[in-house]
Amino acid sequence: MAYQKCLTINTQGRAAQAITAEVAAAVSASGIECGLCHVFVQHTSCSLMITENADPDVRQDLETVFSRLAPDGDPGFAHDLEGPDDMAAHARSVLSGSSVIVPVGNGRLMLGTWQGIFLWEHRHRGSARQIVVTLLSG
Amino acid sequence: MAYQKCLTINTQGRAAQAITAEVAAAVSASGIECGLCHVFVQHTSCSLMITENADPDVRQDLETVFSRLAPDGDPGFAHDLEGPDDMAAHARSVLSGSSVIVPVGNGRLMLGTWQGIFLWEHRHRGSARQIVVTLLSG
Amino acid sequence: MAYQKCLTINTQGRAAQAITAEVAAAVSASGIECGLCHVFVQHTSCSLMITENADPDVRQDLETVFSRLAPDGDPGFAHDLEGPDDMAAHARSVLSGSSVIVPVGNGRLMLGTWQGIFLWEHRHRGSARQIVVTLLSG
Repeated sequence: MAYQKCLTINTQGRAAQAITAEVAAAVSASGIECGLCHVFVQHTSCSLMITENADPDVRQDLETVFSRLAPDGDPGFAHDLEGPDDMAAHARSVLSGSSVIVPVGNGRLMLGTWQGIFLWEHRHRGSARQIVVTLLSG
Repeated sequence: MAYQKCLTINTQGRAAQAITAEVAAAVSASGIECGLCHVFVQHTSCSLMITENADPDVRQDLETVFSRLAPDGDPGFAHDLEGPDDMAAHARSVLSGSSVIVPVGNGRLMLGTWQGIFLWEHRHRGSARQIVVTLLSG
Repeated sequence: MAYQKCLTINTQGRAAQAITAEVAAAVSASGIECGLCHVFVQHTSCSLMITENADPDVRQDLETVFSRLAPDGDPGFAHDLEGPDDMAAHARSVLSGSSVIVPVGNGRLMLGTWQGIFLWEHRHRGSARQIVVTLLSG
């Protein structure tokens, strides 16, 4: 069985926001007991990740790490049509990825206790981001 | 239903090349309407990624970022059997990943407008790269 | 068809260890001929990756690369509740990822000759790590 749901998530600028509840709701709606839950973001300047869900400092420190790996306004970048965060956002998106997949068992996401699913906006201005959640059972 | 197709893609040395059309052809051939499309590269010195499909500067700037994160000929590297780009290629492969997954809806890849699928060769010489495309519906 | 198996893997501190054999055993047990094998780790301070399976120097050099990208005890990190490797481990986990997916064909993992699946412990002390292997056929 396959089940698919499109979500629009509004972001408020560069930050990671939890979307675990929205994904879990899609799992429940699907009725699937055992399988996989795939979450995909249809943009190249934000990304999805699984990380620690308890201490917000973790997400702040991830900003610190990623802003060093791909700095805004890097003089080495040629692509800056939409401003100094344009290319940095694409690089951060490649480094963290456009999708996450979580196993489903007993009708629920099999996340560990400290794992959350996050939409990570890499642009400084917010946007309406389109996400596709797909559930497959055998 | 499951559908699987192996592709050989020739690369010309370090660069990211679009393979969206080849993957889309496999989706059409599968006849699958709703599900997931998994693309996998059977090598550890190239990778797959989803990024901006319009401005080639984006791929050039990604080279800039990744060549800093894992420099060719880094004196800290022990593994250099195949030359100064050998270990850099493995590290770049881990950072960008060996597979991408895209949802399929209405028989088509549900990519965003600006998203493309790229095979990223990390060695300076080209190779024939083996890719496995797998489609699953429910 | 869906098949799911939970594995506990003991780690001995920061290092990447091969789990290809354990994953291959789950594929065999599933009886699935054609489909996908998803491997997921239920923690945010270790990760899964596919990389070169022959020369152990590759994994050592990956330590070198990742210890630069997210250094232990970085003065810029706020999250250090569990010590200087706490936040570094979360960042390394995001950079390498919580899951890998490998196509299954003829009842076997379709890995390339030089590819192995590795559990990468990012904390300096070892732990019992929970892994979920999910197999789906059409």
